[in-house]
Amino acid sequence: MTMRFGLLGAGRIGKVHAGAVMANPKAKLVAVADAIADAANALADQYGAEVRSIDAIEAATDIDAVIICTPTDTHAALIERFARAGKAIFCEKPIDLDVERVKACLRVVDETAATLMVGFNRRFDPHFQAVKRAVDEGQIGTVEMVTIVSRDPGAPPVDYVKRSGGIFRDMTIHDFDMARFLLGEEIETVSAQASVLVDKAIGEAGDYDSASIMLFTASGKHATISNSRRATYGYDQRIEVHGSKGAVAAENQRPVSIEIANANGYTRPPLHDFFMTRYTEAYAAEISSFIDFVESKSPASPSGTDGLIALALAEAALRSVKEGRAVKVSEVTGPLADKSVFQGR
Amino acid sequence: MTMRFGLLGAGRIGKVHAGAVMANPKAKLVAVADAIADAANALADQYGAEVRSIDAIEAATDIDAVIICTPTDTHAALIERFARAGKAIFCEKPIDLDVERVKACLRVVDETAATLMVGFNRRFDPHFQAVKRAVDEGQIGTVEMVTIVSRDPGAPPVDYVKRSGGIFRDMTIHDFDMARFLLGEEIETVSAQASVLVDKAIGEAGDYDSASIMLFTASGKHATISNSRRATYGYDQRIEVHGSKGAVAAENQRPVSIEIANANGYTRPPLHDFFMTRYTEAYAAEISSFIDFVESKSPASPSGTDGLIALALAEAALRSVKEGRAVKVSEVTGPLADKSVFQGR
Amino acid sequence: MTMRFGLLGAGRIGKVHAGAVMANPKAKLVAVADAIADAANALADQYGAEVRSIDAIEAATDIDAVIICTPTDTHAALIERFARAGKAIFCEKPIDLDVERVKACLRVVDETAATLMVGFNRRFDPHFQAVKRAVDEGQIGTVEMVTIVSRDPGAPPVDYVKRSGGIFRDMTIHDFDMARFLLGEEIETVSAQASVLVDKAIGEAGDYDSASIMLFTASGKHATISNSRRATYGYDQRIEVHGSKGAVAAENQRPVSIEIANANGYTRPPLHDFFMTRYTEAYAAEISSFIDFVESKSPASPSGTDGLIALALAEAALRSVKEGRAVKVSEVTGPLADKSVFQGR
Amino acid sequence: MTMRFGLLGAGRIGKVHAGAVMANPKAKLVAVADAIADAANALADQYGAEVRSIDAIEAATDIDAVIICTPTDTHAALIERFARAGKAIFCEKPIDLDVERVKACLRVVDETAATLMVGFNRRFDPHFQAVKRAVDEGQIGTVEMVTIVSRDPGAPPVDYVKRSGGIFRDMTIHDFDMARFLLGEEIETVSAQASVLVDKAIGEAGDYDSASIMLFTASGKHATISNSRRATYGYDQRIEVHGSKGAVAAENQRPVSIEIANANGYTRPPLHDFFMTRYTEAYAAEISSFIDFVESKSPASPSGTDGLIALALAEAALRSVKEGRAVKVSEVTGPLADKSVFQGR
Repeated sequence: MTMRFGLLGAGRIGKVHAGAVMANPKAKLVAVADAIADAANALADQYGAEVRSIDAIEAATDIDAVIICTPTDTHAALIERFARAGKAIFCEKPIDLDVERVKACLRVVDETAATLMVGFNRRFDPHFQAVKRAVDEGQIGTVEMVTIVSRDPGAPPVDYVKRSGGIFRDMTIHDFDMARFLLGEEIETVSAQASVLVDKAIGEAGDYDSASIMLFTASGKHATISNSRRATYGYDQRIEVHGSKGAVAAENQRPVSIEIANANGYTRPPLHDFFMTRYTEAYAAEISSFIDFVESKSPASPSGTDGLIALALAEAALRSVKEGRAVKVSEVTGPLADKSVFQGR
Repeated sequence: MTMRFGLLGAGRIGKVHAGAVMANPKAKLVAVADAIADAANALADQYGAEVRSIDAIEAATDIDAVIICTPTDTHAALIERFARAGKAIFCEKPIDLDVERVKACLRVVDETAATLMVGFNRRFDPHFQAVKRAVDEGQIGTVEMVTIVSRDPGAPPVDYVKRSGGIFRDMTIHDFDMARFLLGEEIETVSAQASVLVDKAIGEAGDYDSASIMLFTASGKHATISNSRRATYGYDQRIEVHGSKGAVAAENQRPVSIEIANANGYTRPPLHDFFMTRYTEAYAAEISSFIDFVESKSPASPSGTDGLIALALAEAALRSVKEGRAVKVSEVTGPLADKSVFQGR
Repeated sequence: MTMRFGLLGAGRIGKVHAGAVMANPKAKLVAVADAIADAANALADQYGAEVRSIDAIEAATDIDAVIICTPTDTHAALIERFARAGKAIFCEKPIDLDVERVKACLRVVDETAATLMVGFNRRFDPHFQAVKRAVDEGQIGTVEMVTIVSRDPGAPPVDYVKRSGGIFRDMTIHDFDMARFLLGEEIETVSAQASVLVDKAIGEAGDYDSASIMLFTASGKHATISNSRRATYGYDQRIEVHGSKGAVAAENQRPVSIEIANANGYTRPPLHDFFMTRYTEAYAAEISSFIDFVESKSPASPSGTDGLIALALAEAALRSVKEGRAVKVSEVTGPLADKSVFQGR
Repeated sequence: MTMRFGLLGAGRIGKVHAGAVMANPKAKLVAVADAIADAANALADQYGAEVRSIDAIEAATDIDAVIICTPTDTHAALIERFARAGKAIFCEKPIDLDVERVKACLRVVDETAATLMVGFNRRFDPHFQAVKRAVDEGQIGTVEMVTIVSRDPGAPPVDYVKRSGGIFRDMTIHDFDMARFLLGEEIETVSAQASVLVDKAIGEAGDYDSASIMLFTASGKHATISNSRRATYGYDQRIEVHGSKGAVAAENQRPVSIEIANANGYTRPPLHDFFMTRYTEAYAAEISSFIDFVESKSPASPSGTDGLIALALAEAALRSVKEGRAVKVSEVTGPLADKSVFQGR
């Protein structure tokens, strides 16, 4: 059976997902919607799809699943709409910048029993997958400490920063998710410190560009995250998991693996300089997994709840910076009486 | 303009090239021919091409170029036929196992002014390309010594060995071409030693599985090649160029870049175990370059002459092993009165 | 001029320093004192020195400098005594486990204008020195973030733990000093989390074996430290400094640099498994620097104040763990009205 | 028992050996002889030894062993003299530049049953030792191919070249010995090619500065050696052994292990730039082994025969370059009727 896709949003990341759908023998791109007609037309043309309105995609009987790549502030409403329309949903992170709005959205997903997968692409990177596999196979024993260094090649434009929800919700959110993915236990407290070292304009916009975060679980496991909006040597993405029997680490990725030796020493070229080239394989594997989840009617992962918790960790980190204390995640999520809300699908 | 391709041979490597054609926005796969109807049908189906006979492809007006992936003993005749038919030709290496047959074939290519490119895929590997670029930019000064280690994960079946022309024509031929590519000067003499260390059956078939080769140019530049049909740790493909100002080397490639540390030490996973996964990017770049050469009406590279010389080096290596002496390449190629034969296109 | 040394304490670390003195052409070991006569005799014998009492060393006119390697609880009193006796003093860290006691001791050092150097040996490791040099030369621009991973091969005996002052005063103290050394700016706040993951007996002794620490300066620079009393792969000692123009890192050290490749992948041997083999060169360089400081009558570094501040950071980290908040270093050190106390020599 | 040493030759390498003797608790330096009185005096002073004539050392009853570090053309006669005087002998390589002279010398060693060890220091490098151990433990199965890259940081002065016996006897001789050490089987044929690429004056002195060598054993094992008198990146010393079950390699050594990352990529400092700093540990271990051999009355290794064969390989390589053919080692050594001559002690 071929899964038939509608794509909402024909921008940069929309194009990546469209390519992944087309390269997947089990999937077909049927329709593209975008507020900018030219963008929608170009993408539809390239892949032999139709341009349709969001309404038309919602009503379509020849579409099984949607990929939501529209601006963040439209995500929650679109998820609710397509959940009710009975489509399987892949949504770019974050679901929303507000924890309560996300909780409301996930209630709809829960009621409609919709399949919702959230786009934490890094989980699908083959190198990080190999790290996870080594952990799951018990190669390092019981996990004790996760160390993540995550630095962007350069700071984003201030306009973007203003809409982004801040460094924790925009950038660290990936690292929060990765820490949870690898710790294998929920995080209880978050401590963070942050400053503006790269671009004053980021500070003037009320955000930070340099941050350190410590995460702590109930059983005493640790994770540390080091973030910067600057890395002259490329897109720095390292993870390490230390356990009772050993450790496993994923090395940085570079486009070419050569080394030049001369009187100055031995030099290897810089890393990838862009998340899209760094995570090319991850984007393809992510859509492929989504198709598998829908086909096998199994819960998608990362789920809506994974999206919610990563956002709550970001919120807790921000409070920790402002209040100079370790913040409990439960302070942010509130009492979770109705556990089912957070089970996701 | 879209370049329209006919594919001759729908086997393992034919599929790779078909995929490269389809992924290239400037190219289209029009027709597939194969003696095994099922193979031709399956490939044509997958990519929306037609199944045609070789005769039909030769006569077709809707085909600009052919990719020859048929058995080696058919290459020379097919090149001649399609050169006369006015098609651009991409042919898998080798053109033929016999130097004289290759020379005769290249004379036809020359007379017809056909475009002929020979499939030395490794020249298009992004890492080896980066090495070449560093050399061309003068980063290591004048080239002095090329060192190539090239080992297969395991020995091929004896049946294959018997048809292969022997280790020098089948395996080392890639390294001979790489050495020429990087030395930037023609090789004058070849010294080789070879033995059977991996599989006795290879020896019984009259071939070797382990070889060392030294190449020497008129100006005194060196290349050394180390070959084995065995490498338990994967497909071992290293090149290094040493020059007056420094050196540049390409590291081995592995599918995942993780490292596991425990009481036994630090372990990284094995290398790629197959040439097709190792050289995925190279195959795509190779076809893309072929299209560019044809489009721009510039001579293709690697040319037919590159194919001829690599074969002559293999022949010289074999003589060196048998006679225990440094063999001049000119002993194999004979007097090249008509230089133009060897200019290739 | 040859510097004449008295050694107080002929235990494990005393032997290392005695060897460093003997190997140094500018120094001579004159006398050894130890409560255990056999230990003193053996060491004195080996190096042609005399066994003397501490009183005799204090009174000796043929001794210029002392190296204090006695138990921690004797350090402060011995420093005061030898400061008053006009000897130059090298003292193993820590000066004392109590901040107020250290301050009192440093007041005596200050009054007597004695030369006091505290044994933070890692500052003298050639690899960490090269990191510091790269930073000082401006190769990475302005320092923004220091990342330290510091893990012991195995947990110490519980008896040792009980006397040690706890993980922060015993183990992290080196990392606190290294962070200060590399940040180039005083630390303002400390946040820490700690747990018992390695050995329950450590927890029962009131200590931790796994800790994460974040340090923050007035200008917003960051340092993170990851500590564990367990590392199956050896003595894990990594530092990285990230700055506005780049980053510099020191790799782990291993006794042999080989790599074995087979079907399981590529394996390098474990790291050094003991701080004495890991820091062999550092210990020699440390004593050599001490001699240079005394000879040139320049202030020793690391100074008594460096020792005090590292201890204060340890104290602050402990408070942070207990109180779940970022602790100001000034809360521990108190008002430093008389700045000169902390200038050290 | 302490072994009492006489040192013949107080030059650069003599000083290194004197230091190794002094640092060894089982040994004592008793006397130093050198044609240059100042050199002898300085070294004797530094280590509390006496200056004596060679005659006096020969006659001395308080000397058990000698270390010969005099000019090459005196080695053979001194070995004979001290063999007859009943001293154990450590001699720097080579024994002589002439194969027949070496054979004559070894006959005297044999007749006198003297202990003779030849200074192939690289066998004692801890990294190469670890390679050898991995091979001996069967970790890579049966050895098939040894690959050695050995490049000097820069060309020696022409004066030195003229006295050196040429690149094969002076430089490659170490690699010949290492190849034999690791192959575990005698070499049967040698093929070599050589040229002048670095310094014309070396060519004018009748020598080469760039060479490639292939070695072949009776059972078909291979070794390749790549030599250059130039390496801008430092003293390049790599060995790799490939076998039926895997491979083991020793990495290059550098004085500091840091890496600087910036917009140009990731740079590690150059290698050691001098054989004495590169092989510091090897020199100490070499003398320590010599002492152990003498003490335990076991045959020294590398033996005089090891020295002879390495020289014969050098001679064979030179013939191969001149005659353009694979040269049998037996052509150089002649018929070895009296096998015992080559057993050495």
